[in-house]
Amino acid sequence: MSAITYELIKTCKQTGARLGKVTTPHGTFETPIFMPVGTLATVKTMSPEDLKEMGADIILSNTYHLWLRPGEDIVEEAGGLHKFMNWDGSILTDSGGFQVFSLSDLREIEESGVHFRNHISGEKLFLSPEKAMRIQNSLGSDIMMAFDECPPYPAEHKYMKDSVERTSRWAERCLEAHGRPDAQGLFGIVQGGEYEDLRRLSAQDLTSMDFAGYAIGGLSVGEPKDVMNKVLDFTTPLLPNDKARYLMGVGSPDSLIDGAIRGIDMFDCVLPTRIARNGTCMTSNGRLVVRNAKYARDFTPIDPNCDCHVCRNYTRAYIRHLIKCSETFGFRLTTYHNLYFLLKLMRQVRKAIKEDRLGDFREEFFEQYGFNKPDAKNF
Amino acid sequence: MSAITYELIKTCKQTGARLGKVTTPHGTFETPIFMPVGTLATVKTMSPEDLKEMGADIILSNTYHLWLRPGEDIVEEAGGLHKFMNWDGSILTDSGGFQVFSLSDLREIEESGVHFRNHISGEKLFLSPEKAMRIQNSLGSDIMMAFDECPPYPAEHKYMKDSVERTSRWAERCLEAHGRPDAQGLFGIVQGGEYEDLRRLSAQDLTSMDFAGYAIGGLSVGEPKDVMNKVLDFTTPLLPNDKARYLMGVGSPDSLIDGAIRGIDMFDCVLPTRIARNGTCMTSNGRLVVRNAKYARDFTPIDPNCDCHVCRNYTRAYIRHLIKCSETFGFRLTTYHNLYFLLKLMRQVRKAIKEDRLGDFREEFFEQYGFNKPDAKNF
Ligand SMILES: [Zn+2]
Ligand SMILES: [Zn+2]
Repeated sequence: MSAITYELIKTCKQTGARLGKVTTPHGTFETPIFMPVGTLATVKTMSPEDLKEMGADIILSNTYHLWLRPGEDIVEEAGGLHKFMNWDGSILTDSGGFQVFSLSDLREIEESGVHFRNHISGEKLFLSPEKAMRIQNSLGSDIMMAFDECPPYPAEHKYMKDSVERTSRWAERCLEAHGRPDAQGLFGIVQGGEYEDLRRLSAQDLTSMDFAGYAIGGLSVGEPKDVMNKVLDFTTPLLPNDKARYLMGVGSPDSLIDGAIRGIDMFDCVLPTRIARNGTCMTSNGRLVVRNAKYARDFTPIDPNCDCHVCRNYTRAYIRHLIKCSETFGFRLTTYHNLYFLLKLMRQVRKAIKEDRLGDFREEFFEQYGFNKPDAKNF
Repeated sequence: MSAITYELIKTCKQTGARLGKVTTPHGTFETPIFMPVGTLATVKTMSPEDLKEMGADIILSNTYHLWLRPGEDIVEEAGGLHKFMNWDGSILTDSGGFQVFSLSDLREIEESGVHFRNHISGEKLFLSPEKAMRIQNSLGSDIMMAFDECPPYPAEHKYMKDSVERTSRWAERCLEAHGRPDAQGLFGIVQGGEYEDLRRLSAQDLTSMDFAGYAIGGLSVGEPKDVMNKVLDFTTPLLPNDKARYLMGVGSPDSLIDGAIRGIDMFDCVLPTRIARNGTCMTSNGRLVVRNAKYARDFTPIDPNCDCHVCRNYTRAYIRHLIKCSETFGFRLTTYHNLYFLLKLMRQVRKAIKEDRLGDFREEFFEQYGFNKPDAKNF
């Protein structure tokens, strides 16, 4: 039996969005779901206890970063990533591919893998499908990702086609190199940019192999939102119904809803945690920059409609003060709220699917958040 | 009735240390006690919930810093410091004097008060006994401190005598200017450096006025440890038995025990939190620099004899990794442990007083901590 199973519970009659259930060696959770990002074996400023309290079931951690610091051998010696960081929920690790292509300037792609330089020390490194599997096997994540090439946006059709074909060949090597298929599930990543024929090619290649789930990569890399939605429109129908679908790197509230409507089950993004450390919050009434001077004497919560621990106990004035003074507790409070906000949004999305009204929910949410305003500002 | 009361429960037969009970408008706690420092209305990296969980009853906050950021008017508008920072335990605020004398280069002392420059903006500022009272009344702390002059160490006898006399005159003005004596208690500060005659003069002046408690200032400012103990030896007997005694700025484990033995009831210091953010921990076996390379694969807790949440759940290897990566969760973990360590030490001190064996406890603790070694390294 696969380490990861997906069960489709129901489809929203209004939108086609999927309500499902994913089971990993560390638990079962309902989908669609948002995964907080814990790059270096910690979701910045949060404790695992905080994440539990806010209702997170699964987090993402970055293979590339853990490989460099502290090194996957140390994590393995600790008994795996769960034990190392004291998190007994589920963990998904990416393959390192995205960081190799986004953080490193000097890189050379060849059939065997990618040569590049460590973004901290400048040291020469090499990552390949086999190496990415070995590291993730050492980390012991519940869900591993195949090592893929992440082309820039935009990319020429010719370049993208070569890349998709290479990614398919690498995917096969990943399946072969995966050392613990009973304990860890491996997801394939569909690439192809904005090209429908290449997404089809990539999906056909990958679904012909036995992956535990499928991700859609190469989106949220700078393309306009309608391009992302269009790509999802023609890509998700190419994926099997009985496996989880993961849209990588997406975490703005509108895109989470629009992704769910297009059949996505899992999302991750550093957005909520990154903007939190800059004093920006997501609220039911839209974006709120709590560090702004106008909140200096505002003794209301970040979001009056939020029932999170932060909104029940702390004011905008206090949080603004902390952030203005660079006090880490301020970043804890905004991070906690933002993550809670997205986890709650996903609970609302799941409820709306159950009630066959995700389309209505989208309209209500967009209206209140302000996405329908002509000058709507996203992140 | 005074806002602050002190009840002497018993005296250690072996050492003369006092077991007591302090009651403030926000609760009752046993003494001797250690107060974590929350400079800017936050104990760096900690939440008030963390402080509650580790057993803190009273914290200290800094008048000077809160006056500049966010401004005492904002704290007052929030309903006072307790509400502003969501802390319902007791709070002691200092007078701002220490920061004026330690952070500011350009200062001019005159009878009315001190002219100096804001250490952040360079703006010209003026602090006086009346102003220090007004700010602390706005903050609404349970225990306020009189505005005193903090002379450098060492200082000439002549300079120190003038300073002590001025501090006594300022103390009277503080008592007069204190606007909420029923809701907030005011402590006087005995100065006089290492001069016995001046400590006597200062104590006589101050105990002739009606303060709710007495602090000993001007120690832990660079003098050798035996000088501090000697000054305590001749100063604490000058203070009334029915009021709390607070030794300012002391937080190393040996000095907490030696201070308690000399009749001190309250202590505060940034030491445990400051060294924590540098990756240094206090443990039952002595100082441990967890960021050191030798802990990279050490999967034991910071202190095997500690029962705090951190030591029950996190390893040296993980904490070292976080701190090496400047992840704030690492600083949370070391800060939590260090504060827990000192709060527990004070619980042990109180227990030893109850059992008339604080002298024995001192010997046992010093031996295990390593203070008796010839090359003993303190902080
Ligand atoms: Zn909230
Ligand atoms: Zn501990």
